[in-house]
Amino acid sequence: MVDITQKESTHRTAIAQAVVKVSSQKTINAIESGTVPKGDVFAMSKAAGFLGVKKTSDLLPDCHPLPVEFCGIDYEINNLEILVKVEVKTFYKTGVEVEAMHGASIVALNMYDMLKPIDKGVEIHYIKLLKKTGGKSDINRG
Amino acid sequence: MVDITQKESTHRTAIAQAVVKVSSQKTINAIESGTVPKGDVFAMSKAAGFLGVKKTSDLLPDCHPLPVEFCGIDYEINNLEILVKVEVKTFYKTGVEVEAMHGASIVALNMYDMLKPIDKGVEIHYIKLLKKTGGKSDINRG
Amino acid sequence: MVDITQKESTHRTAIAQAVVKVSSQKTINAIESGTVPKGDVFAMSKAAGFLGVKKTSDLLPDCHPLPVEFCGIDYEINNLEILVKVEVKTFYKTGVEVEAMHGASIVALNMYDMLKPIDKGVEIHYIKLLKKTGGKSDINRG
Amino acid sequence: MVDITQKESTHRTAIAQAVVKVSSQKTINAIESGTVPKGDVFAMSKAAGFLGVKKTSDLLPDCHPLPVEFCGIDYEINNLEILVKVEVKTFYKTGVEVEAMHGASIVALNMYDMLKPIDKGVEIHYIKLLKKTGGKSDINRG
Amino acid sequence: MVDITQKESTHRTAIAQAVVKVSSQKTINAIESGTVPKGDVFAMSKAAGFLGVKKTSDLLPDCHPLPVEFCGIDYEINNLEILVKVEVKTFYKTGVEVEAMHGASIVALNMYDMLKPIDKGVEIHYIKLLKKTGGKSDINRG
Amino acid sequence: MVDITQKESTHRTAIAQAVVKVSSQKTINAIESGTVPKGDVFAMSKAAGFLGVKKTSDLLPDCHPLPVEFCGIDYEINNLEILVKVEVKTFYKTGVEVEAMHGASIVALNMYDMLKPIDKGVEIHYIKLLKKTGGKSDINRG
Repeated sequence: MVDITQKESTHRTAIAQAVVKVSSQKTINAIESGTVPKGDVFAMSKAAGFLGVKKTSDLLPDCHPLPVEFCGIDYEINNLEILVKVEVKTFYKTGVEVEAMHGASIVALNMYDMLKPIDKGVEIHYIKLLKKTGGKSDINRG
Repeated sequence: MVDITQKESTHRTAIAQAVVKVSSQKTINAIESGTVPKGDVFAMSKAAGFLGVKKTSDLLPDCHPLPVEFCGIDYEINNLEILVKVEVKTFYKTGVEVEAMHGASIVALNMYDMLKPIDKGVEIHYIKLLKKTGGKSDINRG
Repeated sequence: MVDITQKESTHRTAIAQAVVKVSSQKTINAIESGTVPKGDVFAMSKAAGFLGVKKTSDLLPDCHPLPVEFCGIDYEINNLEILVKVEVKTFYKTGVEVEAMHGASIVALNMYDMLKPIDKGVEIHYIKLLKKTGGKSDINRG
Repeated sequence: MVDITQKESTHRTAIAQAVVKVSSQKTINAIESGTVPKGDVFAMSKAAGFLGVKKTSDLLPDCHPLPVEFCGIDYEINNLEILVKVEVKTFYKTGVEVEAMHGASIVALNMYDMLKPIDKGVEIHYIKLLKKTGGKSDINRG
Repeated sequence: MVDITQKESTHRTAIAQAVVKVSSQKTINAIESGTVPKGDVFAMSKAAGFLGVKKTSDLLPDCHPLPVEFCGIDYEINNLEILVKVEVKTFYKTGVEVEAMHGASIVALNMYDMLKPIDKGVEIHYIKLLKKTGGKSDINRG
Repeated sequence: MVDITQKESTHRTAIAQAVVKVSSQKTINAIESGTVPKGDVFAMSKAAGFLGVKKTSDLLPDCHPLPVEFCGIDYEINNLEILVKVEVKTFYKTGVEVEAMHGASIVALNMYDMLKPIDKGVEIHYIKLLKKTGGKSDINRG
């Protein structure tokens, strides 16, 4: 594990994405009309994603625990693709990229899990970092 | 999740209660004499409560993780009612009310779980915040 | 911990409740219209409740881990009171009462946590078992 | 949550993949020669993946807890892409697809986390189910 | 992970020990009279040990999750040594030795943690398996 | 729980050890040549140990959660004994001794778990603190 005891706390943000691709417009309609049998897909996946972000250091051995001071999750529907964006912020000695990426993957997996009974063809594409600020270098691939 | 990155850390305390009502004086006697078959109800529930307080943000999606810097748990017996009081303190950007309430609920549930074999009528009443200091406003319903 | 190695698996169900009392009709309206700033209160609390039910034996020392094979969560609004009902089922050697009660308490606490910014007077009342089947005796207090 | 109390246990297997794409042959060389500063990437990610598979129902609200009776994790290097394959087996009432997919995503994220200091361009592609047996229908996209 | 899908469930028991050595008779007296400032050492460590036994597969990557169907924890004081014995039982396809050993280590660590403020010389010796039954071979080193 | 709200953060380090004794040189050879069937014992146990260090306050009721800012794990082979050393650092109000000791115990237990199929005689000896700095007094038993 990297030794961060001597580092200064600074403001850190990261935005990660996951793309969930469903196989039919019916699935999109069911999500939007709130008729997926397992419940409200976006709200429940947001709850799972928030918890996932906070548990990142519980799952990744080398990852420092850190105070998650903000988490926001948004969805954008483009035809059969749903773009999940997870933003995380902290004021700490290390960044929140992996936390944002873990959150995005949990949201995507939870959507897959909730949609499975009505759509066997859901796929998860491109879990990646879109943007980070704070730390040695900023990244912006938005 | 509320964005607390720009907030200042201040001293925060919260005291929450739960009321556990047993159905017979025999149950109270068994607790006090240490003869409940599952073990020492107050000490084991205190252990469960401490862990519960620390796990609050693991269970509630929107709740910020925070450094629990003190936790104290007390019991007060009034006839068939046991008043559980959980006090939590931190020095951080957000309060510890929900942590104290979660701790109180876990203590109460653990008492229920340990007493179930000897008393089928245990009930949990009134999980509520008694007092908080720090943050925008103090509350005192003690 | 009770030794259940020699017990037979049977079908078990339990329904527990929690009552969440808000202080104003505006809070109920915000929940129903989906305008609570922290998000969809019922859906996100359902997600928290499902996870809470599954984590019961992680929080209560004496509680056996068991296969949660069904969990359902419903809400009923009566004026300023919201009745939370959590049903849990398993086919195992021991019952799911405490799991249902823990789920009800987590749903209630999560509602409290999400509503706190818009209503300082939310209270949690009466976490109790309404019904159980399977095991030595059935209970029905519905 | 789907009610599985009345279902029969059957043998279930699932294989899921994730693709981790690094940005340079140097990264592949460092992994193969065991010179990544954070440690042995494949072995440590396997450990994280095993734990991730077992924690799936802890992170996804609607997912049934189940006895993970086998987990195997393999890596295949194709130029700059590393194909992660996670196989999970159980004898239970419901399948292990989401467990395998969650394991694959945790392995991929842990590789990302361990490689970050030496390669800023690591990406995670295509978390998907390759194969499942048991349950209503088999799937084979291998 | 060893593939146990084809194995038969049988009755399994394991007893493990840890030895906690304190540096002074005063520490023993404080434990026995219940005057350790942090609380009742034996009861709270029992609570921690029960939870520890149940979390074994959460901490050890290769360890199968299994239904802990009994756990018992006993203490025996011999001069300055406290012998901790943890017994675990299940009816499953694999044994509970590691669970018993993990429980013993958590009890011992919790005793260390609670006694630290009054005794700086506490040591933990010999975490080992005393006995196991079920599976390919019995062991008895009691 | 000790109230640390008024304490100052200082640099803290702790090094703890565990001794794992195997019963035959063949076991040592299998570890060193990477031929233990369950996988790379040192790397996977390091992963388990890092996670264990971070989860200490999740398992020990009275232990404060704290930001683990460094963790390092080393192995030293002396004939049939493997000395595990776990170093932990933080900048916080309380020390990391118990975290280091918990990490050492998890590494040792994981080695036991992975070696069990090839060596029935593995034992865990002497989990103890070797060194600490920061806080009221330094300790050095190295």
